Amino acid sequence: MSSALDGRRVAILAADGVERVELEEPRRALDGAGARTEVVSLSGGEIQARDHDLEDAGTFSVDRTVADVSPDEYDALLLPGGTVNPDKLRMEAAAVQFVRAFVESGRPVASICHGPWSLIEADVVRGRRLTSWPSIRTDLRNAGAEVVDEEVVTDGNITTSRSPDDLPAFCERIVEEFAAAGSDTGARGVR
Amino acid sequence: MSSALDGRRVAILAADGVERVELEEPRRALDGAGARTEVVSLSGGEIQARDHDLEDAGTFSVDRTVADVSPDEYDALLLPGGTVNPDKLRMEAAAVQFVRAFVESGRPVASICHGPWSLIEADVVRGRRLTSWPSIRTDLRNAGAEVVDEEVVTDGNITTSRSPDDLPAFCERIVEEFAAAGSDTGARGVR
Repeated sequence: MSSALDGRRVAILAADGVERVELEEPRRALDGAGARTEVVSLSGGEIQARDHDLEDAGTFSVDRTVADVSPDEYDALLLPGGTVNPDKLRMEAAAVQFVRAFVESGRPVASICHGPWSLIEADVVRGRRLTSWPSIRTDLRNAGAEVVDEEVVTDGNITTSRSPDDLPAFCERIVEEFAAAGSDTGARGVR
Repeated sequence: MSSALDGRRVAILAADGVERVELEEPRRALDGAGARTEVVSLSGGEIQARDHDLEDAGTFSVDRTVADVSPDEYDALLLPGGTVNPDKLRMEAAAVQFVRAFVESGRPVASICHGPWSLIEADVVRGRRLTSWPSIRTDLRNAGAEVVDEEVVTDGNITTSRSPDDLPAFCERIVEEFAAAGSDTGARGVR
């Protein structure tokens, strides 16, 4: 029995301060559809998760560091939110370059809540239609994006949602989008 | 014996997630120079402070709520950092309007680290020379600011610094700037 994302490799790029449910629930949906997800971060070990930005919410194990991976190793990229998480990612050149290369490759990228701050730093939102947590919409508009207030928005290879409340629609959409995009890594062939 | 800021009223606008030292040290410097500082926030009670964004660092008592104060009641405004703090402030129209009115009034405004995100939301950085924590500099440039990497920068009525490391220079400068600006609230007369 095959699944929509059978063997497809997905990078989840995140750092300390990631909003727990915004990593956990999309990962569960992707894994459930047969994908092989990896948490990619700025350094090894664990990252600290948060609920509602301020409450401790455990940790996630890091599988790879961003300096040691190539975008070509993944079929899709997920950028969860949490206010502090993208604030840390956007200061690291390797993370920003990873995001930029991914978007420019045409492979699917999904982001929720504050995650799109990393897209701003990579300067890949110009002329793109997307959504986000309300606090960063001025930053997105100033970076050239067309910002809308919808639960899930797909424009080309970028899919975005606003908040944890949108997770059901976001998870459903990213499985569809990641499946539709096919695989550049030969994932189906080697697994 | 008179002090540089004798009786001058200073609003410290902050929300949950404020970086503890960025509220505490400037407040100490201002109070030490004779100012009367008040913590203004989105709601009453207390706000949660953080060290390095992620570690619990106690609370600060809120003196006034932003919906209940007028910029005319203060001689100067301080906007501390902490990543989550301005992220919350910028979503509240009353806070954004307070910041905008303050800057436009010509009275001195000081901000450090992530604090200038509130200045972006108030759309008052266009053509202004300022500094900040590195992560928000792209957002500042996209909002029209000229961003420099200096420990303390004063352009007209806006003074900014980069991080807690800059606090000694920041505190010294804001006392000077707040003193030089005089008082519009008649603070000297009534105290």
